[in-house]
Amino acid sequence: MANYTRRTRRQLPGGAPSDMQDISIVQLGLGGVGLALLDQFQALPDASRSGLTLTGVADSSAALYRPEGLDGDTLAAAVAMKRARSPLSAHPEHLPAAAIAQAFERGPAIVVDVTASEATMPTLRQAAEAGCGIVLANKRPLCEDSATWRLLTGSGRLRYEATVGAGLPVISTLAYLQRTGDTVLKIEGALSGTLSYLFTRIENGDSFSAALRSAHELNYTEPDPRDDLGGMDVARKALILARTIGIALELSDIAVQALYPPEMARMPVSDFLAQSAKLDQSYQQQRREAAREGKVLRYLAHVEPGNVHIGLAGVPPESPAGSLHGTDNLLVIHTRRYSNPMRIAGPGAGPEVTAAGVLGDILDLAIAMRAQEQGGRCL
Amino acid sequence: MANYTRRTRRQLPGGAPSDMQDISIVQLGLGGVGLALLDQFQALPDASRSGLTLTGVADSSAALYRPEGLDGDTLAAAVAMKRARSPLSAHPEHLPAAAIAQAFERGPAIVVDVTASEATMPTLRQAAEAGCGIVLANKRPLCEDSATWRLLTGSGRLRYEATVGAGLPVISTLAYLQRTGDTVLKIEGALSGTLSYLFTRIENGDSFSAALRSAHELNYTEPDPRDDLGGMDVARKALILARTIGIALELSDIAVQALYPPEMARMPVSDFLAQSAKLDQSYQQQRREAAREGKVLRYLAHVEPGNVHIGLAGVPPESPAGSLHGTDNLLVIHTRRYSNPMRIAGPGAGPEVTAAGVLGDILDLAIAMRAQEQGGRCL
Repeated sequence: MANYTRRTRRQLPGGAPSDMQDISIVQLGLGGVGLALLDQFQALPDASRSGLTLTGVADSSAALYRPEGLDGDTLAAAVAMKRARSPLSAHPEHLPAAAIAQAFERGPAIVVDVTASEATMPTLRQAAEAGCGIVLANKRPLCEDSATWRLLTGSGRLRYEATVGAGLPVISTLAYLQRTGDTVLKIEGALSGTLSYLFTRIENGDSFSAALRSAHELNYTEPDPRDDLGGMDVARKALILARTIGIALELSDIAVQALYPPEMARMPVSDFLAQSAKLDQSYQQQRREAAREGKVLRYLAHVEPGNVHIGLAGVPPESPAGSLHGTDNLLVIHTRRYSNPMRIAGPGAGPEVTAAGVLGDILDLAIAMRAQEQGGRCL
Repeated sequence: MANYTRRTRRQLPGGAPSDMQDISIVQLGLGGVGLALLDQFQALPDASRSGLTLTGVADSSAALYRPEGLDGDTLAAAVAMKRARSPLSAHPEHLPAAAIAQAFERGPAIVVDVTASEATMPTLRQAAEAGCGIVLANKRPLCEDSATWRLLTGSGRLRYEATVGAGLPVISTLAYLQRTGDTVLKIEGALSGTLSYLFTRIENGDSFSAALRSAHELNYTEPDPRDDLGGMDVARKALILARTIGIALELSDIAVQALYPPEMARMPVSDFLAQSAKLDQSYQQQRREAAREGKVLRYLAHVEPGNVHIGLAGVPPESPAGSLHGTDNLLVIHTRRYSNPMRIAGPGAGPEVTAAGVLGDILDLAIAMRAQEQGGRCL
């Protein structure tokens, strides 16, 4: 596992030695996506990983950091620990979590946030202020106030493909459209695989509560399914899409339709699941009303200037959203140049495809940062 | 129109002067896509165009080239000329077409081929051998023999997004999937807007000949519609997709189903259109047979190792290909990591969106070339 060791001076293809400094990668988060990302990084061909050195990893309890690169044994022990659900603080060489910020002072660095936590914000702020690159799968930092959005996006050294649609080419496509002078007019999306699954089950005759229990058992929902049913996860994605196309907005500005009534918000998860049958009749009625108009129910995000909202809507079954099945995500992108909208669909969650979205960002951002060192721009 | 003038020394955001040399852009082709590209390049914000200088343009008759950058008046005259359907050789400052190759010897250059011609191949070969960047909307150079494919792709300084699906993120997505360690198992696609239009009309009850005449009148077909109906344009795209995912193949290896019989291959276009009604009965029968199995007809490309073919197929109307309408293209990408395939759909032709695909490639490639100068890799 020598893959993690640092290479500072290398032979270039042309034969000339390079004084280029390696870009230091530090990773916050060692959950499902974080572990998949370490695997994928390690499996990269040498040519792709060239010039990148993993110097640090952190979870909420502690960090491991070595400026010369984490060696294979240290890292393997950390991975084994996390797979066994121990915190990183159990590793003999652990440092305080904040130690990771040392990386930001020692030449070019990229901090990768694959947590789902607000606790990484101070570290990301430090990274942005030090001019480091930032790659996010974590949606929360991008949903803070507009000033934070400007801080994170201001340097051009931010990538966040995996925040919407996991590994689907969503953010990169919006960036490309705008970079080449197109104007994004409207985005419509099914941005929750969990809710897509739920409503295609209901469409096929299942009750809401049966579909929900099945989604919960298959681990399609969060441990507390209200985290999906409340719509806030979709709202965060919609906010990220909106801000990406230049709509100034705060999370609190978005109208979000929750799929359970307020009185069910605080009960224990088991009670919530047991009592969800109370909602069956209402969803059956909504399904029938939609069917009477030849429509099916989908939980959709609608993003256009002056009109960003999230909620249940009836759509024609032959429409892109109506023909979705399973847990797929869908983005429909209307632009000035495209007569018909562009559609991107496919699995929008899962550790492997999410990690690939993050890894793609790291590789792209490293190239952009190198180009910027040359005096070029960093998109 | 000072936008085209060269800027060699600039202030960087940090304030330090840069010795970075501008990247010279030379454009082969001044048809619909070429003129749209010049417009879009000129409309780029300064920050995006920074470091790029348009030094040359060429059509099949002649070239304009100035190492310090084409000035606005020269270029405006050339554009007016081409809009009036005059050749570039009518421009007072024109040079022989081959003069464009001077650009390859004077520092970093990108040659952009937006023709549909085989005649650019010697120039592209020179560019590749000189280590220049190459951006193609022209499919033909990528459909030459495998040795030419290796020459063009070998340096990593090639981009060709617009060759398949115009501005849809197809090639970049395949590159991303493979760069992050995924394996593309199979691609299925509706890669001809013209043929999609034809068969959705037939599905809706039109005769083949009526649908064809309508497509011809709307300029959805090539001037000779047999260029679409022969399937070779789709076959070229399939070959490009196959080679992109690592399948070694020649164009002649691909089984292509033509949509007219050999005896109609050589008659004048007007006779062909007039006699196309002879084919109506056969297509009506195929449509009815498909309908009997609950299917609709689509002209599809199928790309997987050992099995690349092009032709008419019956597909379920609710499938991604079956639910296509109008002139849209569709790509369905099956990979090892994606449980369900990724789908990308939308307008796959048109000067504006094709030019945007080319422009996106130019901007990305310029960044990659800058990074490579820094000793980084060029993807």
